[in-house]
Amino acid sequence: MLKGLTRAGLGGNVGSIEQFVTAAAAHGFAAIAAGGQELEEWITAKGIEAVRDFLQENGVQIGTIGLSVQWRDTEEEFVSGLARLAKDAEAAAAVGCTVCCTYVLPSTDQDAAHFTALATRRLRTCAQILAPYGIQFGLEFVGPHHLRTKWKNPFIWGLRETLDWIDAIGESNVGLLFDSYHWYTNELGVEDILRLKAAQIVLVHINDAPDVPIADVLDNDRLFPGEGVIDLAGFLRALKQIGYTGVVAQEILTPKPLEQPTEELLQRSRDAFRKVYTSAGLE
Amino acid sequence: MLKGLTRAGLGGNVGSIEQFVTAAAAHGFAAIAAGGQELEEWITAKGIEAVRDFLQENGVQIGTIGLSVQWRDTEEEFVSGLARLAKDAEAAAAVGCTVCCTYVLPSTDQDAAHFTALATRRLRTCAQILAPYGIQFGLEFVGPHHLRTKWKNPFIWGLRETLDWIDAIGESNVGLLFDSYHWYTNELGVEDILRLKAAQIVLVHINDAPDVPIADVLDNDRLFPGEGVIDLAGFLRALKQIGYTGVVAQEILTPKPLEQPTEELLQRSRDAFRKVYTSAGLE
Amino acid sequence: MLKGLTRAGLGGNVGSIEQFVTAAAAHGFAAIAAGGQELEEWITAKGIEAVRDFLQENGVQIGTIGLSVQWRDTEEEFVSGLARLAKDAEAAAAVGCTVCCTYVLPSTDQDAAHFTALATRRLRTCAQILAPYGIQFGLEFVGPHHLRTKWKNPFIWGLRETLDWIDAIGESNVGLLFDSYHWYTNELGVEDILRLKAAQIVLVHINDAPDVPIADVLDNDRLFPGEGVIDLAGFLRALKQIGYTGVVAQEILTPKPLEQPTEELLQRSRDAFRKVYTSAGLE
Amino acid sequence: MLKGLTRAGLGGNVGSIEQFVTAAAAHGFAAIAAGGQELEEWITAKGIEAVRDFLQENGVQIGTIGLSVQWRDTEEEFVSGLARLAKDAEAAAAVGCTVCCTYVLPSTDQDAAHFTALATRRLRTCAQILAPYGIQFGLEFVGPHHLRTKWKNPFIWGLRETLDWIDAIGESNVGLLFDSYHWYTNELGVEDILRLKAAQIVLVHINDAPDVPIADVLDNDRLFPGEGVIDLAGFLRALKQIGYTGVVAQEILTPKPLEQPTEELLQRSRDAFRKVYTSAGLE
Repeated sequence: MLKGLTRAGLGGNVGSIEQFVTAAAAHGFAAIAAGGQELEEWITAKGIEAVRDFLQENGVQIGTIGLSVQWRDTEEEFVSGLARLAKDAEAAAAVGCTVCCTYVLPSTDQDAAHFTALATRRLRTCAQILAPYGIQFGLEFVGPHHLRTKWKNPFIWGLRETLDWIDAIGESNVGLLFDSYHWYTNELGVEDILRLKAAQIVLVHINDAPDVPIADVLDNDRLFPGEGVIDLAGFLRALKQIGYTGVVAQEILTPKPLEQPTEELLQRSRDAFRKVYTSAGLE
Repeated sequence: MLKGLTRAGLGGNVGSIEQFVTAAAAHGFAAIAAGGQELEEWITAKGIEAVRDFLQENGVQIGTIGLSVQWRDTEEEFVSGLARLAKDAEAAAAVGCTVCCTYVLPSTDQDAAHFTALATRRLRTCAQILAPYGIQFGLEFVGPHHLRTKWKNPFIWGLRETLDWIDAIGESNVGLLFDSYHWYTNELGVEDILRLKAAQIVLVHINDAPDVPIADVLDNDRLFPGEGVIDLAGFLRALKQIGYTGVVAQEILTPKPLEQPTEELLQRSRDAFRKVYTSAGLE
Repeated sequence: MLKGLTRAGLGGNVGSIEQFVTAAAAHGFAAIAAGGQELEEWITAKGIEAVRDFLQENGVQIGTIGLSVQWRDTEEEFVSGLARLAKDAEAAAAVGCTVCCTYVLPSTDQDAAHFTALATRRLRTCAQILAPYGIQFGLEFVGPHHLRTKWKNPFIWGLRETLDWIDAIGESNVGLLFDSYHWYTNELGVEDILRLKAAQIVLVHINDAPDVPIADVLDNDRLFPGEGVIDLAGFLRALKQIGYTGVVAQEILTPKPLEQPTEELLQRSRDAFRKVYTSAGLE
Repeated sequence: MLKGLTRAGLGGNVGSIEQFVTAAAAHGFAAIAAGGQELEEWITAKGIEAVRDFLQENGVQIGTIGLSVQWRDTEEEFVSGLARLAKDAEAAAAVGCTVCCTYVLPSTDQDAAHFTALATRRLRTCAQILAPYGIQFGLEFVGPHHLRTKWKNPFIWGLRETLDWIDAIGESNVGLLFDSYHWYTNELGVEDILRLKAAQIVLVHINDAPDVPIADVLDNDRLFPGEGVIDLAGFLRALKQIGYTGVVAQEILTPKPLEQPTEELLQRSRDAFRKVYTSAGLE
């Protein structure tokens, strides 16, 4: 399981993608999350060979790109993002990235059944556009309770429900973005992970939560791995046990960017991963 | 557009399927609705050639079979009905029937988003089992307002939402069972029909509604065509205009079976169809 | 059925797409074939509103774009064309074009079974990319006998086989580009058209063939409609009878561009269409 | 990897399915292949609980059922087998069997491209019928050279081609039945297995071949594992390395049933498996 970074939790000054790669490498990370357009611009600026060499020299891979398509609102907005998605996928594939992810908000102002129908078809279309590029599509269920009632109607926030929805989407390249934070806020256990197959998971996020009642855990109040109360050792061991070998990335969402210098936050991230990987017996 | 009968509205004594066919023929109907198992048993009893001859001599076709699969509850119940569906489809295809239908209740006690995901996958499976037999699968949206709140969570009852759901199901043999009663209780107009393509409609139901406020129209308080306030002439003309050539069947749901003798109800049906077909300029 | 033009048969100097539109309008045509990239560049240069106004003022629609993706050779080449396809589709949709077409060569140097498997998946991907833009995808079977043995292994050239292949591709927006020339060289008749449904046809080509044995008809030796021996009146009447209302475009493939001035060729096209439409009772 | 038996290679008197289960258990096998109808009849005769108990007490699972549908000939024959397939799948699922397999002959008297199109759609339908029962569908490519030219046109016999065909079929429950005999006659190596993912393989067959030139290896002239020249140790080690954990069953096809008593053949099978599993370091 490859240690990975997103920009969330590293303060506001991570810099260019090249600086991000270098910083990740320097602190023991083997993967980063990037944007598809960001990758395309990088490739255009430096040439694909130079980009590949740079990644290889740093021992860092692009673990995932975020889905740029707006699939939650109007059909016009949705369709207008699809050509961009193809370009994102092309850029991602060119640098060896095989994952694209989006998150699923647990409530919606739209009618729940109708929205499910629309979203099923739209996410299927996204999966179909990603597939020829060899890219898997990860859906992240989002557990914090306050978001379940933030919008008018409840939507999907559980593991079982998300797996059923993936079945409804019906494309073989769709799987889970599995985040310890949402595993925890759904009050799931190690046995729930052990019932999964590694092939159902396309990306893992690892974050920690403060010691407050689960119903009060806020989505953007995350701690670095090992700094909170989530059983991350059990989480990692279970993922290892089912054979997951992909990226495990932190995504420390906070009310505002952390004010520590980026270098300190990178060290804090490195130490956090070491701590939980060690407690899980992974290093 | 072929005039069709279901058993609903003909009292409790329509008799065997052969009697039903004979009665339909005698009163000017060209199609009836049947059960798949009923067809299989008839074929087993009489032989497929005799059944086909009987239908042809009476000038009556089997317009549709009802979906026997229970897709709204547990997965076990759902799966346990699929082998029966294959037999239903085989029997239907043997007698030239090309339509199978189910109805969609407008509310549900289940979580709406999760239920939509499950139902999308299950109805897709049904469509896939029907497809090799050349059978189209019709979904009937159900408009009466009282059913929209009968169960805990709102589901799907509108035309637009049903079409979007059909897209989510994603099989080319799925279309609408389009019922004048639900067209009326959704307060749709002729222009909504004119925006459809004939190929989107796999079966039409024609029923009339009493002169009460639309929000008070009950699902099982239907009148014979022409006896109520729905603009059935406009309904039929619009269907004709978009090129629909399939079956138009009445389905007179009532609180309890009508007490008139079946023969009288058949005559009433014949007269009802004559009246609305004439007013639509169809005969 | 809308009279349409492709550039094939109009000599080498049809000019810009605006000139092509103007010329088509001036000679009684209501549709032209264009390239997706050509449309995108036009929209970029003039703005989408101006392009739409121009088309509307001229009473000409973009009937189809050609598939720019290379689906017959390597996987790399195929995938490298998909982002372009999304842009093509976006441009086409912006101007109201709802059709994209490709042709199917009747023999191949590749192993036939393996190539069929690859091409089935690739054309499905193309259809999936076109679908969210509301664009249908037409496959043109190609009948001339000399092409059936031009490459090492026989592939698909017949109507029945193409329809079966469309079923294998399995996307509901895939249909036929139906060309009178291939109808003729397959020795099909009016009854074969009458067995089709209009919805199976996404575009029609109309061309005529010289009076030589059918086995000697060459693919690029086409005559203007009415100048040869194909029963184009029967062809058009049958299409009308099944309810086809789309574009009927000529595509006069010749060994080298015709040397007549374009203006004369446009008049010849106008007269050719008048002749066959009149003989079919369509005007 | 579970040791498995098919009836092929055990002489003509294996007896009832209960006797087959008992015999398999007595000789160290953990799985057998059965027929779907055979399972249904067994369940009907003894009751599902008794059947499950019997299998559990013997420590034997039903590793696979054979596809009973005739998908290679007429559409009528194909469709007529689908209701049976649903019953087969229901019976298989009831006893915990999660695999159904068919083989692919490497040549055909039909036109190769058209047959590929038909077979793609038909096998997709089979996969769709199996899916709701939780059953995977394995396609066995068949390598012996003499069969590649036995019928008029070459079809598919290689690993790469079969995987591409599985992509064309496009259902996520379709994978490989991977037979050492066809691996050998395709002259594939260990590295070809290592490029696979375990999830692509739904069943493994293990058979050995005589020491004749590969082009002369006959499909029905198979030896017990370890009695011939195939590198079965390498074969098994590679499957283990990629994480395959399913059934490995022998299928000793011979010109006529072997004449040794079944008991001796069972012992020979047991010894054969011991030999190759030991040489592979698996026991």
